[in-house]
Formats: sequence, C-alpha cells, structure tokens
Amino acid sequence: MTIPAEIDTPEIIIDRDVLQRNIDRMATAVQAKGLHLRPHVKTHKVPEIAEMQLAAGATGLTVATLGEAEVFAEHGAKDIFIAYPLWVGPRQAERLQRLAAKARIAVGLDSREAAETMAASLGDAVGEIEVLLEIDSGHHRSGIAPDAAVDVAHAAARAGLRVTGIFTFPGHSYAPGMPLKAADEERLALGEAADLLTAAGFPITHVSGGSTPTATLTGNSGATEVRPGVYVFGDAQQLELDRCAAEDIALTVAATVVSRHEGTDLIPRRVILDSGSKILGGDRPGWATGFGRLLDHPEARISALSEHHATVVWPAEATLPALGDRLRVVPNHVCIAMNLVDEVTVISGGEIVARWQVAARGRNK
Amino acid sequence: MTIPAEIDTPEIIIDRDVLQRNIDRMATAVQAKGLHLRPHVKTHKVPEIAEMQLAAGATGLTVATLGEAEVFAEHGAKDIFIAYPLWVGPRQAERLQRLAAKARIAVGLDSREAAETMAASLGDAVGEIEVLLEIDSGHHRSGIAPDAAVDVAHAAARAGLRVTGIFTFPGHSYAPGMPLKAADEERLALGEAADLLTAAGFPITHVSGGSTPTATLTGNSGATEVRPGVYVFGDAQQLELDRCAAEDIALTVAATVVSRHEGTDLIPRRVILDSGSKILGGDRPGWATGFGRLLDHPEARISALSEHHATVVWPAEATLPALGDRLRVVPNHVCIAMNLVDEVTVISGGEIVARWQVAARGRNK
Repeated sequence: MTIPAEIDTPEIIIDRDVLQRNIDRMATAVQAKGLHLRPHVKTHKVPEIAEMQLAAGATGLTVATLGEAEVFAEHGAKDIFIAYPLWVGPRQAERLQRLAAKARIAVGLDSREAAETMAASLGDAVGEIEVLLEIDSGHHRSGIAPDAAVDVAHAAARAGLRVTGIFTFPGHSYAPGMPLKAADEERLALGEAADLLTAAGFPITHVSGGSTPTATLTGNSGATEVRPGVYVFGDAQQLELDRCAAEDIALTVAATVVSRHEGTDLIPRRVILDSGSKILGGDRPGWATGFGRLLDHPEARISALSEHHATVVWPAEATLPALGDRLRVVPNHVCIAMNLVDEVTVISGGEIVARWQVAARGRNK
Repeated sequence: MTIPAEIDTPEIIIDRDVLQRNIDRMATAVQAKGLHLRPHVKTHKVPEIAEMQLAAGATGLTVATLGEAEVFAEHGAKDIFIAYPLWVGPRQAERLQRLAAKARIAVGLDSREAAETMAASLGDAVGEIEVLLEIDSGHHRSGIAPDAAVDVAHAAARAGLRVTGIFTFPGHSYAPGMPLKAADEERLALGEAADLLTAAGFPITHVSGGSTPTATLTGNSGATEVRPGVYVFGDAQQLELDRCAAEDIALTVAATVVSRHEGTDLIPRRVILDSGSKILGGDRPGWATGFGRLLDHPEARISALSEHHATVVWPAEATLPALGDRLRVVPNHVCIAMNLVDEVTVISGGEIVARWQVAARGRNK
C-alpha cells in the first residue's frame, strides 16, 4: 500500500477493511466457543470502533477507568465493565452513580478494604453497582488467590455490594510459549474461585477472562465471557508471538525517512524515521526484536527509539530506503500508540474515508 | 508532602518552587560558562514554563517539531530552533514561512537531499529560514560525521539556504559513567566540524550542544549554546544517573494504592498503584532499577508497569503502604509523562495554585 499523499507524517492510519475482518473473526471464534465477547476498548478508545464491535455481536464493553466508561456511556454503550480494582471515594461514587443511570455498570474489586470504602462512598446507591472479584491467575499484578475469594465476597456482601462474578487478566500470556500455559492457569484459577463462591452461596453469573493471546484458547472452563482488546488492530507483539499475521495488522504509523546512513564497521547502517516513542510508544518486552516492526520490510529492525526518532538498522544485503521515503511502522503495543494521538486517519481500499477522534485518550481516572 | 485532597489520581503535580529553583540554577550555571541557554521545551510543552525560562535569561527555545514551534510562536517566542532534521515538503514549507513571520526560525539538516528538497519547497522564501547542520558526536542517531559537514554545507548554500551553525545531541550521555565521556566527544565533534566549516568560508555563529546530563559539562569547546530539557523537572533517570537529587524533583505523579499483597515465597510482596504506563510512560533503560521511583520511599522498586497498574515491590523489612494511601511517583523519563496528559496541577507551599495546559502535547508533526 502507498501512504496517501495527503497524509503528513508521523500519523496513525487504520485500515477499516482489515479492522472489520479482525472484529468479525474474533466475534465468530468466541461465539463458536459458546462465550460472550466483551472487548476491552482501552485498546482503541474510539466510539466508532466500539459500535463496530457491538454490531458484530459483542455483549458489552470493557474499560479500565471511570473516564473511559463515561466516554463510551455518553456514546450509547449500555453494558460496561470497569475491569480494574477501583478505589472509590466520594467523587468516584458520584461518577459511578451518574454512569449507572445510563448503563449496567460493573467494577472490579480485590480487597475487603476497597469493598467497604466503595460501599460507604456509594451510600444508598450501593445496590446500583455490580462487582466482580479480581482473581490472580498467575500474572501477580492485582487480584487475589482463588481461595481468598469467599472472604472478600462476604465482606462485599456485608457492605451491601452485589457480587455477580469474577474476572482475571492472564497478562503473563504476553510472552513466547506462554499463551497456552496462561490459558490453562486462567481456567484453573477461575474454575476454583467460581466453585468456592458457588458453594458459599454466591450466584456467580459472570466469569470473565481472556486477553488477545488467550481469548480463543479460553473455554470449557466455566468462563462466560472473554475480554480481548488488541485483536482489533494487531501489533508487533502479537505478530512476534504468532498471534496474528502481517495481513491482520490494521494499524500502522506512517513515517518518513529523515536521515540515512550507510554506516561503517563501527557505526550502524541505518535510517531514521520520524516515528519516535511519542507516536509508537516506548514499550519493548525483553523478547521483542525491537521497538516495533516495519510492515513492508520484515528484514529491518527498530534498534532504538527517541521521542521523535526511530533508528532502523538494515541488513547489509538489502537496499536502504531513500531519504523522504514513507514507510509503515507497526507499534509494539498498539494500546499505547492510540493513547498518544487525538485523532487517526481511516483508509479503505487505499483511500482516506474518515478521521476518527480518539475520544477516550488520556482518560486516566 | 501530602497530596492535596482535591486531587484525584493518577495526576501529574508540578512543584512550582522546585521548578523555579531548577530553572534559575541551570541559567546561572550556563551563564557562568559563558554559554547561551536554549532550553528544549519538548520536555514540558507548557507555555508558562517557557516564559519562566525566558525570564531567567534563556536566549530562545528549542523544539522538536513544527507543531511545537507553532504553539510556542503563538505564545510569543521570538527565537526558535527546531533541532530536528526536518523533511520539508510544500506543506511543511508553508508552515515554516508562517512561523518565520513571527520569530527567528532555524531548523536542523543532515543531508544534501533534505537541503535540496527544503530549498525547492521554500522557493523564494528560502532565505527566511536558517539551517544548522546536525553532527553525530557518538550517539549514532541522526547527524553526519564532522568531516562530512562541509559537503552538506556547500549543497545547502548552493540550494540557497543560510547555514549559520551546527548542533549535536550527545544522547549517549544518558547512561551510568557516560556524561563526562559524551561531553568530551561532543566537544571534539563540534570543534572539528566548526573548524572545517570556518576554513571553508562558512560563518558559523551557532554551535549548539548539551543534553541535561552534559549541559554544565560543556564549554571551553567553541560551543555557543546548550539545549538541556529535563533539568526543569528532573526524573528517575537523572536521579539514578546522579544528575539531580531527590529535592530537585519538581514533577511527580500522584497515585493511589489500589491493591495490596503481602506475598508468599513464590509471589512478590507488592502494592499496585493506579499510575500505569499511560501516565508514567513505559521507558526503562537497561541500567534503571525499575519503571520510575517513589519519591518518599527510596526502598521500593517499580518492577512492572501495565497501562493502569504500577507493580511496586517492597523489601521485607519495610511496612507495605495501606490500601487507599496516596504516594508520589517519579517517572523514568519526564518528557514522556508530560506528553500523556492534557493538563497538570501546579502546587506551591503544598497548595494548588494553578492548572497548566500541556499546550504542545501530541504535536508530533
């Protein structure tokens, strides 16, 4: 694909046709497993994309913050899960109540203290918000061990909260060889917690798991829904983990070669692109080959990233791009890239068809 | 310092008193070296801070993009250097001309091709823009070797551009033990290029160097100005490189403990803060101890960062903070953190005194 001439770089470009295909494929795969799909919209933060996901059969949306929930509720979402152990003081409680007037709202919870604080802040509105307990399935971030779930559920219930489910994020699936192992651990942890809670008399209707690497591996586990996010766009991490192919990449950063150096024995042969960490994001897991990939040049490696420079080293046998050439860069972690821009260019069949606002960008609280 | 109760987290807080002290200290140190100070405002992107820098004696401003130049020119800056090898097509040339009507504008250049393209795009306006050649002093990003400067200068002059100086970015100074070595290499590279250009008849009036780690080490080198950025705030990188002290940190992210785990033999003892990579930025050089530091808890380490979670591990002998506690986090790379938010809270004497817009946030092109 040639980058349309109207576009100044660096710019995020979304291929709407690939996006639609990714949305449909995940919807079909999750449905075939008998699961509900509740995509995590922190990946894109764009109401138009959430509409495409809901139109393809998503049951509801997942967000990470109150601010994201507010943006999507304002755009008509009717069922939102804030998959985060919120600390709810009086100001957060007011916002939750306003949200609950527009949509079904569930929030994450992983401690007695958070339950009691949330309930006290909500006061008479305590029954309007559902809570899902966060279970640690091996990522060791937030979340409690499955055998601690009943205690927290009792504390939440005593405080007046409605415990309707459990969730986990198998974040340790984002590494080579890990998706299957993480999906297994997710299955075991959710199963154990659900069994214990059911035995203790809690009616568990939502059992929620599934990152993009594990979403289609989950199932046969008592899970009722999955929450993948990145699948809409794909990114260099998913590509290098073999969880998507180059033709599934729906989002690239259009970039220009601004500096070019044939190199010497001591100095790398390289070009510099104007797509730095301020548009690609600086994420680089240890197993990644670099700070992103070039979609049309699998042989190149992004060896370093400054704020406005990507240093791309090129093997000796391949021709270095020319100064002024425009290339498509795949970010390592697409959620971070989207959070850096206020709007994106949408193409279809190689033509610009829309500009979308990243409406929930920067809504960190 | 207690985080003011009005603040919801995560939120960037700037201590105006520390900021003013940092600005004054650098201005004095650079003046004592007989150099001009042209601070890089990509660090903060805030017109109010640029005004403080200019009031303290800065000669002009440095920016990385046309968009940043436009924001600061609109706010009255009269002398702006775009320290970047811009690729100037017709649209960029129009923007440069509009800028040149408001301020002295200089741009970076590191190739014959960029010079010819820029000159062709500027047309009759070619004389309105100054260019500074970028010299590679060892960072091996953009920039040419000192002995290649004369060729590029001749090409630029033939195309009608006014070559008035040279610049370098000693980015390899951002590592332990490197500031002195990088400052030496910067001195040698700038000196060699300036001598060659002067001998070839180019009147070199601007010789520009100096990152925050090297700014006060530069000098006695024929340099005429330095362009530090990070010094206004300090950050965890500068702290761990010993280039600033804890009391020099002017910017922190206020964060709340949302999850707390005493851990086991196999699972880390940790708290989770709501300050993830979407407000701290994901930068982590290999030599850093983690993804940022806790200003009031030097014993803690940020071992992992997700978009909305910071995993903070705590040594066995220290008490874990309580759920709901609010802590101050120092980002690893403060330029990245500022680029993630649209406004920041400013305090003085522990009281909120202002909200500043991050006016040039996201102006990547």
